Amino acid sequence: MFARSSRTVFSTVLALALTACAAPTTPTQQATATATVPGASASVQPISQLASWNAGSNRDRIVDFVRRVTTPGSPDFVAPVDRLAVFDNDGTLWAEKPQYPSVFFYFDRIRELAPANPTWRDDKVLRAIIDRDDAALANISIPDILRIATLAETGVSQEEFRAYATRWLATAKHPVLGRPYTQLVYQPMLELLDYLRANGFKTYISTGAFEELTRVLAPVYGIAPEQVIASRWKMRFETTSEGTRVVRLPEVDFYNNTANKPVSIEQFLGRRPILTVGNSDGDLGMMAYTADRKGPSLAILIDHDDAAREYQYTAGAERVVTQATQRGWVTVSMRRDWRTVYPPAR
Amino acid sequence: MFARSSRTVFSTVLALALTACAAPTTPTQQATATATVPGASASVQPISQLASWNAGSNRDRIVDFVRRVTTPGSPDFVAPVDRLAVFDNDGTLWAEKPQYPSVFFYFDRIRELAPANPTWRDDKVLRAIIDRDDAALANISIPDILRIATLAETGVSQEEFRAYATRWLATAKHPVLGRPYTQLVYQPMLELLDYLRANGFKTYISTGAFEELTRVLAPVYGIAPEQVIASRWKMRFETTSEGTRVVRLPEVDFYNNTANKPVSIEQFLGRRPILTVGNSDGDLGMMAYTADRKGPSLAILIDHDDAAREYQYTAGAERVVTQATQRGWVTVSMRRDWRTVYPPAR
Repeated sequence: MFARSSRTVFSTVLALALTACAAPTTPTQQATATATVPGASASVQPISQLASWNAGSNRDRIVDFVRRVTTPGSPDFVAPVDRLAVFDNDGTLWAEKPQYPSVFFYFDRIRELAPANPTWRDDKVLRAIIDRDDAALANISIPDILRIATLAETGVSQEEFRAYATRWLATAKHPVLGRPYTQLVYQPMLELLDYLRANGFKTYISTGAFEELTRVLAPVYGIAPEQVIASRWKMRFETTSEGTRVVRLPEVDFYNNTANKPVSIEQFLGRRPILTVGNSDGDLGMMAYTADRKGPSLAILIDHDDAAREYQYTAGAERVVTQATQRGWVTVSMRRDWRTVYPPAR
Repeated sequence: MFARSSRTVFSTVLALALTACAAPTTPTQQATATATVPGASASVQPISQLASWNAGSNRDRIVDFVRRVTTPGSPDFVAPVDRLAVFDNDGTLWAEKPQYPSVFFYFDRIRELAPANPTWRDDKVLRAIIDRDDAALANISIPDILRIATLAETGVSQEEFRAYATRWLATAKHPVLGRPYTQLVYQPMLELLDYLRANGFKTYISTGAFEELTRVLAPVYGIAPEQVIASRWKMRFETTSEGTRVVRLPEVDFYNNTANKPVSIEQFLGRRPILTVGNSDGDLGMMAYTADRKGPSLAILIDHDDAAREYQYTAGAERVVTQATQRGWVTVSMRRDWRTVYPPAR
């Protein structure tokens, strides 16, 4: 463990970008990774794979799109190599309310590190985290979340931090929903990911959260760690007497949200996806970038309209809801389109 | 096409990093991409796949390593998801002498853009490029190459630039070696890439060159564009009346060489590769990072010792040659280990 610089000044741009959407976020479980196979399957897999999706026009549009891009000779046929599907994570693949899981992750990490950092008790926010003062934390500000994230996530090597994230995801439970974080993933989305891969798609996550926790979570979705695009810290390569390591520095290198999501798609994938799924204004850029592709494309918006089984909210999604309506994107209703929300409890 | 800012100041760090290794570099051809399949093949493929490799201890060590990591029950068994192999490009997968192909690519691009930029003739270096004054260009400086690269590569959208790179690679010939650039790839390395993929490896390129030309070239190696890690420009997402686009800005965002190669491995892959291949001091960082992995790993150095069929040089590889010897890495002799260098002319 290295000296940790306690207060990092984040750029105004970053703070503004964060304020524009909602709050940070993230991730979960170490399982056996299923590497995705961008194979050349020509025949569309049966709809039975989408068992948790109710029949209806939204499911039909998804299946019809997959049929068109995978049918050789179809004017909309897309070669397997270009069947890239990009999914937002928080609120799209797993629950993001009442707070992003990554924020709870930061809190737990702060509590783990607190004994070695006694001066943290002098800080009001840190003290509230250490003392589990939920009332004081209910309205934690974005700058405070970023400050906490820096303390929680940086100053250690990639491998040290990955080990912590792996351990956390394997053992932590969501303080409000009471489930392990790995069971806060949406069952219908697990099926959609499988369905796409069975049809030769390569599936990616693009998240505003920082990268390691999302990468540790990714195998739950059948996604390999290298198919996660995320926010990231600056890093430094070091050679020591014990070997080499890459250390996480307390400065944001890239904040993967809003207008940066299309940029990181170009950095990582080098072309437009043909399918993208999101749920908030932070995803609007990559959804528009996908929808503007020359050739077939499908943009899907997840609408949190299920107060009974999950949450009902549109805050932070106002612009993307309008765009989805105007441009005829698929707007999935959690309440009407999903037979179940979460996987069966394990 | 957008306004191009003609002179960009590169950071001292970047210039120093470049000076420390050699010169910039890059890429080649649009073919049908073969997406790599990180499958779970359990049995090792026959050595006959390595037809252009002479029998000997180097080939034996490669085959033995692949056998160990793919044999279930072997103490060195590595799950397919972690079978990541990372290859440098220039001088490792294709020829980098007498000049990096990407420099010739910049020159051609400058000549294409020159008619629309008449003031370029007032600049000594640009005039030499436009007039094909090879003598004047023989010792072009690193800062000048970077300046030229900025003019050649930025100020346009990703898609406009990709279209140019695709066209160039399909038509250009190397001015000295006389072959299309796509035939300057090393036949034994094509076989090694295939051999690894047949054994469940996922193959990546990590190059100091900028990303797009390498991505257009990647299918020649059977590598999908998203499996290329490279230097990159800053980019900006824009929404216009004609839709969305990502524009290449005249400022280097990341220079993927030396100590940055392990950093981008963490950014893109999120863990150490188990196999890496390089040929210069610019690759030493990622080779050490791979060799220091807990568990089996193999670092391979390509030694350019073949004056008759390719080139003979160690300049820019002094440190990695020493390390390879001290640490017992595989040092491949192009002269002794390779039956042929280039693929049959097409």
